[in-house]
Amino acid sequence: MERENLTLLTDLYQLTMMGGYFRKGMHTRLVAFEYFFRKLPGESGYAVLAGIEDMAGRLEGMRFGKQEVDWMASLKLFPPDFLDALSGFRFACDVDSAPEGSVVFPNEPLVRVQGELWQAQLAETAILNSLNYPTLIATKAARICHAAAPDPVIEFGLRRAPGKDGGMTGSRAAYIGGCVATSNVEAGRRFGIPVKGTHAHSWIMAYESEREAFKEYVDVYPDSPTLLVDTYNTLEQGIPNAIAVFGEARKAGWKGRASIRIDSGDLAATSIEAHRRFEEEGFADPLIIASNDLDEYLIADLKRQGAKINAWGVGTNLIVSAGAPSLGGVYKLCAKNDSGTWLPRIKISGNPEKTTDPGLKKVLRLSRGALFAGDLLCWRDEEPQRHKPLVGIDRNLFYRRTPFGDDLEAEELYKPLLREGRRVSRERELEEIRRYAAGQIGRLPAVTRRLRNPHIYPVLLSEKLATLKKQMIEAQAHG
Amino acid sequence: MERENLTLLTDLYQLTMMGGYFRKGMHTRLVAFEYFFRKLPGESGYAVLAGIEDMAGRLEGMRFGKQEVDWMASLKLFPPDFLDALSGFRFACDVDSAPEGSVVFPNEPLVRVQGELWQAQLAETAILNSLNYPTLIATKAARICHAAAPDPVIEFGLRRAPGKDGGMTGSRAAYIGGCVATSNVEAGRRFGIPVKGTHAHSWIMAYESEREAFKEYVDVYPDSPTLLVDTYNTLEQGIPNAIAVFGEARKAGWKGRASIRIDSGDLAATSIEAHRRFEEEGFADPLIIASNDLDEYLIADLKRQGAKINAWGVGTNLIVSAGAPSLGGVYKLCAKNDSGTWLPRIKISGNPEKTTDPGLKKVLRLSRGALFAGDLLCWRDEEPQRHKPLVGIDRNLFYRRTPFGDDLEAEELYKPLLREGRRVSRERELEEIRRYAAGQIGRLPAVTRRLRNPHIYPVLLSEKLATLKKQMIEAQAHG
Repeated sequence: MERENLTLLTDLYQLTMMGGYFRKGMHTRLVAFEYFFRKLPGESGYAVLAGIEDMAGRLEGMRFGKQEVDWMASLKLFPPDFLDALSGFRFACDVDSAPEGSVVFPNEPLVRVQGELWQAQLAETAILNSLNYPTLIATKAARICHAAAPDPVIEFGLRRAPGKDGGMTGSRAAYIGGCVATSNVEAGRRFGIPVKGTHAHSWIMAYESEREAFKEYVDVYPDSPTLLVDTYNTLEQGIPNAIAVFGEARKAGWKGRASIRIDSGDLAATSIEAHRRFEEEGFADPLIIASNDLDEYLIADLKRQGAKINAWGVGTNLIVSAGAPSLGGVYKLCAKNDSGTWLPRIKISGNPEKTTDPGLKKVLRLSRGALFAGDLLCWRDEEPQRHKPLVGIDRNLFYRRTPFGDDLEAEELYKPLLREGRRVSRERELEEIRRYAAGQIGRLPAVTRRLRNPHIYPVLLSEKLATLKKQMIEAQAHG
Repeated sequence: MERENLTLLTDLYQLTMMGGYFRKGMHTRLVAFEYFFRKLPGESGYAVLAGIEDMAGRLEGMRFGKQEVDWMASLKLFPPDFLDALSGFRFACDVDSAPEGSVVFPNEPLVRVQGELWQAQLAETAILNSLNYPTLIATKAARICHAAAPDPVIEFGLRRAPGKDGGMTGSRAAYIGGCVATSNVEAGRRFGIPVKGTHAHSWIMAYESEREAFKEYVDVYPDSPTLLVDTYNTLEQGIPNAIAVFGEARKAGWKGRASIRIDSGDLAATSIEAHRRFEEEGFADPLIIASNDLDEYLIADLKRQGAKINAWGVGTNLIVSAGAPSLGGVYKLCAKNDSGTWLPRIKISGNPEKTTDPGLKKVLRLSRGALFAGDLLCWRDEEPQRHKPLVGIDRNLFYRRTPFGDDLEAEELYKPLLREGRRVSRERELEEIRRYAAGQIGRLPAVTRRLRNPHIYPVLLSEKLATLKKQMIEAQAHG
């Protein structure tokens, strides 16, 4: 079966620009673009890059079939010779990227696309749409899992997720960020994510009494009988009924772990009381799952209050990244090739933060022992690690110089992903990406991981790159 | 080609509950569930219901093919006889809903599903996932379009949209809410939404000079040559270059409308200055499009400042509904059938707002002249409109009685959508839904439409329904 053609899932201006470049004979000029974001979502000190595998597939698959070209022709907007040329269009750029699951930071290039102008231009929306949302959700999940650690977090977001695919993309990203399971069955089937879930209030309401409903549930699903205890009155009815039903089952030989879910009310007080009563009845280690509009802050707060909760179900606030519902990733021209020579390009903004870093670059990730210590943006061809000690220059305040010391290891963040539009690196399975992300997150300094007011992780320019940027800004100011 | 099977795009607990009901021989009992939300997003005084057509298709298509059943069996979770029964499963419920594009309010049922317990239960996640996000975005779009009126709003959200389908669903919902066009080409192709877009900063940066880039763009696309003027210096270079290029084109016989887009900086001051300069050069009515992190509040503010902007491109804040990124729609059991008689069901919460309204209901929408005046929740079988003047009772404070007067027209909100799982109402085209939504929004009182602190639109109970609710709460308290 033919793969779905997502090429027109793009912004119209990519196509009008392509047509313009074609008409002007510029479409095969060689250029380079970079994907990066300028601001971390919300209060986070880091982001977890996600969506790279999906992006690679979308870029590889970019082509214009007859249906696509006919529809474009119907707009009566594009030059006819351009439309003719599209049937031979193939995405043949070189693409490098940080691996999916990397921890990443503002203003460092995470994907570089190098190739013909019309191809590299068309890649923009596919890249932004592939990466912005999953990176946001993987990051939110990492923060929520950090707050809940060592307890597991289960993602319950599908019902509030942005559409069908939003739910799928979101479940996958949440798993990368550290969730242990999802309620989304299709995400379990397609991606192999463990699925979890037992019953809703409607199960209870379908029976004449809560106790009967509990009893029947444990009877059908003795291996994972989590009982939702807050349909009527949690402390007066729900918990006593659950204890009674588990007690009867135990007398009848059931050997499972008693388990409840609390979905409303004072989760701290209720969980503490529930735990006490279960222990009193000889259930030594009840599984107490909490849900209900949780996020990283509320989980941290409940833990500070001594809540006896040992698993967390998080839905809405995870799947929409509440508090920071968008990641502003952008895709900017950084270089163009003139007769075989790569010339750096810069976009200068009235807001210096938005002035781009010019040229073909690489990112050196510096580490000291196991921990990441900072990222250094360099010219692609320079090898600053040969000239230790390393110095990093602020992206805007060029007089601010940070010596990194000479005890650092340096590794390149970019890995080859596509060459001439074809995949050159191995496709990575979700489990591998998730393990990689866990390793990456584990290498962050604690001060960078914390939920509020994290230390700003240094992303600095090499001396050579800072000098180039300064010169280009001055040249443009005087030019 | 077979339609994609989305049946497993559901929460696991729907399947475990279905299996439990099956094992207990309860799965064919007749029940009724309702979809509603409890809180409007953000500061809005209304919502625009979207996603109904998609939901209808998903419900109609619910079935378990061999692949689905085999995969479920691999979980080793479900009773084998239940898995066998699934191959004969067909969604055969009756579904009523408010039409897509309706203006809707908290706590009123918007969809009712009536049928066998296992089928109605399975519908939950499909309904929530189909409606919550599109309704959120259609509502946000309606607010943004209200702020911009009479200027058109173009949706630019794809690059920040939640995944592939998030972008599609979002573009469609934004169009229902009142946007006139999208940048999303695939949404144009699939849904027939007008597509708009010209060029990005990269077009400018691909040329040696901004002026050359402008000139070439107008040459290729003389019919819609919107020039992005803020790549380098908007007032010193961008606007003068645009005026010069349009002036030259005019001398050469071009008769189009001069048009620019401003994507950064002080949009009020820059647009006023740009307009002045274009007028000075004899361009009487330049099209000035603004973009850059706009939302309804910023647009209203720019208008108050006299900004000379006559079209608005809104992306991120629209497509993620920034400030209110989720809609908490829920799906609750309201009745069950016992030997042919429908018995109301209620879920009582410690938070009275969350206590459900019991029974099979209908919603009467009351209007005075063209304007909607309030919604009355009634028993399905009662005809309160025969007993004018109508009185509405508060959902919780039963002593609060609101007389509606006797000059009101009443119309039922629910229309039949599916009968025995098959579509009975005509499928509606997107254009028709959009027109319907515009008509609905136009019937809202101005005080309900305003951006901040809107009047709360009355959603009240009929005397009969309030009496039932009160009795059921009391019975449960004493029972």
